Amino acid sequence: MSAFVYDIPTKVYFGENQLEHLGKELAVYGSRVLICYGGGSIKKNGLFDRVTAEIKKAGLTWFELSGIEPNPRVASVNQGAQICKKEGIDVILAVGGGSVIDCAKFTAAAAFYDGDAWDIMTMKYQPTKALPILDISTLSATGSDMDAGGVISNPDTKDKIGFSIPGVLQPKVSFLDPTLTYSVSEYQTACGSADILSHVIESYFVPQNGSMYMLDKVKEGLMKTVIKYAPVALEEPNNYEARANLQWAASWAINGFTGVLQNCAWSCHPMEHELSAIYDITHGLGLAILTPRWMKYILDETTVERFYEYGVNVFGVDASLPQMEAAEKSIEMTKDFLYGTLGLKSTFGEIGIDDTNFSIMAKKACQGAVLPGFKPLKQEDIEKIFAMCL
Amino acid sequence: MSAFVYDIPTKVYFGENQLEHLGKELAVYGSRVLICYGGGSIKKNGLFDRVTAEIKKAGLTWFELSGIEPNPRVASVNQGAQICKKEGIDVILAVGGGSVIDCAKFTAAAAFYDGDAWDIMTMKYQPTKALPILDISTLSATGSDMDAGGVISNPDTKDKIGFSIPGVLQPKVSFLDPTLTYSVSEYQTACGSADILSHVIESYFVPQNGSMYMLDKVKEGLMKTVIKYAPVALEEPNNYEARANLQWAASWAINGFTGVLQNCAWSCHPMEHELSAIYDITHGLGLAILTPRWMKYILDETTVERFYEYGVNVFGVDASLPQMEAAEKSIEMTKDFLYGTLGLKSTFGEIGIDDTNFSIMAKKACQGAVLPGFKPLKQEDIEKIFAMCL
Repeated sequence: MSAFVYDIPTKVYFGENQLEHLGKELAVYGSRVLICYGGGSIKKNGLFDRVTAEIKKAGLTWFELSGIEPNPRVASVNQGAQICKKEGIDVILAVGGGSVIDCAKFTAAAAFYDGDAWDIMTMKYQPTKALPILDISTLSATGSDMDAGGVISNPDTKDKIGFSIPGVLQPKVSFLDPTLTYSVSEYQTACGSADILSHVIESYFVPQNGSMYMLDKVKEGLMKTVIKYAPVALEEPNNYEARANLQWAASWAINGFTGVLQNCAWSCHPMEHELSAIYDITHGLGLAILTPRWMKYILDETTVERFYEYGVNVFGVDASLPQMEAAEKSIEMTKDFLYGTLGLKSTFGEIGIDDTNFSIMAKKACQGAVLPGFKPLKQEDIEKIFAMCL
Repeated sequence: MSAFVYDIPTKVYFGENQLEHLGKELAVYGSRVLICYGGGSIKKNGLFDRVTAEIKKAGLTWFELSGIEPNPRVASVNQGAQICKKEGIDVILAVGGGSVIDCAKFTAAAAFYDGDAWDIMTMKYQPTKALPILDISTLSATGSDMDAGGVISNPDTKDKIGFSIPGVLQPKVSFLDPTLTYSVSEYQTACGSADILSHVIESYFVPQNGSMYMLDKVKEGLMKTVIKYAPVALEEPNNYEARANLQWAASWAINGFTGVLQNCAWSCHPMEHELSAIYDITHGLGLAILTPRWMKYILDETTVERFYEYGVNVFGVDASLPQMEAAEKSIEMTKDFLYGTLGLKSTFGEIGIDDTNFSIMAKKACQGAVLPGFKPLKQEDIEKIFAMCL
C-alpha cells in the first residue's frame, strides 16, 4: 500500500437556497467576475438572473463567456482567456455541468499564458497558477466541482485531452443545489449516472495494493448509491433525496478521496475520450457502452476476485456462487443496470459508430504503447474491445 | 434533508517516510515553531529527533511545550499560549495523539487572548483566529487531525468541555504515518478503536432526515473497517494494512464529512466527558462501557429501524429476522466486539466507579435540561443509563 497526499480544499455549499452566500464568497477573490456558461438554459430557467442578482448585491461587476460546448473546445478556452486579460478578471464563476466547469478551469490557467491554450493540454506550457474558480454545478456527472482536472477537445486535431493540475485547478468554492438538477433530462440523467458509476469503477478495479479496504467500502457505497437513486431520479425528476444522493456521490466519486491510492491509470476513460473526440457523443453514453465489454475482456483468473467482490458487495450477487460465476453475473448486472434500468443504448451500431476509426482511436488511447490500467491493454486489445461494442 | 457546508481544508501526508515534507510545510507559516507533545515517549522512540532534524534542515527554530496530559488540561493550554506570546511563535506543531493535538489547537487560539484560556471553553472569549497548526498524529482514535474541535479539562471545576471552531482550529497539514502507531499499546489500540467506532455511531444513529443514504454507506464502511482491523492490530501491532485502515478511518469518522447532515447533538460523548472529567479514565474506555447501555436504553419501536440497518449492514445480522430481534442482536454483537474482541472492561464496577456522582454527572451532561441526541435524554434518563453500567 503506497503513501499518498490528500489535498481537497474545495469548500462546498450543499442544498437549496445556498446562493445567498455567492456574493460574499466571490468578493474574497476580487470584484471582476467572469461568468462561464453553456447553451443558455440558465438564462431561460432563471438561474442566470439569480446569480447576477447576488453578484450585483455584493457590488461586483461581471463579464460573460457563453456558448461553452458539451465536450468543451479549446476555442472557448482561448476566448475566455482573452476576456480575462482584456477585462482584468479577478475570479471565474462557472455555472453549468462538467463541460462548463472544465472549460472554466483551463480558462483560469490560460489567463496567465500568452500563447494558444492548447499548449496547456499538450504540456508545452505547464501552469503553476490560475485565477480562482468558483462554480455552481447543475449536473451530477463529472464531479469537476471538487477535483483538479478537466477535459478539453480540439476538433482540428480530433484530440480530446484530460488531466489534473492539483493545487492549481481545484475550485475554491462549489455550490451544489440538487434542485438545480431537477430539470436535467432523462437522457442526461442516465448518462451522468453512468459517468459517476464509471469513475468509481475505474478506481475500484485496481490491483490489490492499489486500494485499501476502508476506501473499497466507500467506493462500494458510492456505486450502491448510483444504482439505488438513478432510477428514482429518472422516475421522479424532482425527488430531492435522489438528486441529492446522486450529486454528492458524483463529487466524491472523483475528487481524489477514493482514488488516492491508485497506482495505475484508468482504462475506460482514455478509450472513451477517443470515441467522443471523433464522434462528439455524450461521454457517459460512451462509457456505458464500453465498460461491460472492457470488464468481459479483462475478466480472467488474475482479476476474478475483484469482480467477485464487486458483484457480491455492490449488486448483492450470491456470495456462495463459484467466484467466476459470480464475476460473470456481476458483468451481466452492470449491463442490466446501464441498458435496462438507465435505458442507455448498448452498441456502437445504435449510435452510428462503425469500425472505420478503431485502429487510430485504439492507437491514441494507448499512446502507441500500453494503456496501464487494471489489466494493461495494447492497441490490439483496445481494438478488440471496440469490436465487442459493435 | 438539510443543507450543509462542507469545509475540510486539511492537507494530509499519509504513509511512511512523509516527514521529509515537514520542514517545507512548516516554513510556509513562519520560522518559529512550538512543538507540543505529551509524556515524552517521542523522545524515547526517536520521533522527536526525526522531527527536530527536519526543522533544523529547513532552517527553523523550535520551542517546546511538553507534558501534555491525556485528557489535556487548561493549565497546559495557558502555558502554551504564554510561550507563543513570549517567543513570538509563528506555527504550532503537535506531535502525539488526540490530547496533544487538542491542546495545541486551543493553545493556537489562546495565543491571541490575554486572559485565562478557560474563557474559550466557557465561550466568554470566542476566537476568530488562531496560529496555524500542523500535526503528526501517533494514535488512531480522536481524529483530531482533520477536524476543528477539541476537548479540554479543568480539574479545579471538574469540567471537561469540547467544541469545534470551524475555519479556525482545523490543522493546516497533518502527517499520518501508520508505522508511528505500531508502538501503541494493546490497551490504547483497543480504546482508540472504540473511540473511532463511537464517533461513527454518534453520527449514524440520527433521525431519518439527519443523514443521507450515500453517507450511511460510508459510515457503515468505516464501522466495518474498525471491526475488521482492530483485532488484526491487536494481534499483530506492526501490521501496516491494519494500522493504515484504522488511522484513515479515524480521521474520516469525525472530520465532518459523514456527520455533516446531522441535526442533533451526540449522546454518548457528552455522557462520557462527565465521566472522564471526574475519574480521568481513558475516553475510549468510557465510551465502550456506555455505548451498548445507551443503545439498549433508547431501542424502541421508533428507533428500531436504524438498529436493524446497523445490525444487518455492519455486523451481517440475518436480514430476515424480525426487526426487533435483529436490533437486539446488533447490540449484543456491539458488546461482543467491545468487551470480547477488544477485551475492554465492561462495567463501571471494574474501573472503580460507583453511583456517587451519577446525579451531578447526569445533570451536567444534559446541562440541566435535555441532551438532544437521537433520542433526547433528560437527567433521569442519563442516570438510568449510568446505573446500567454498574
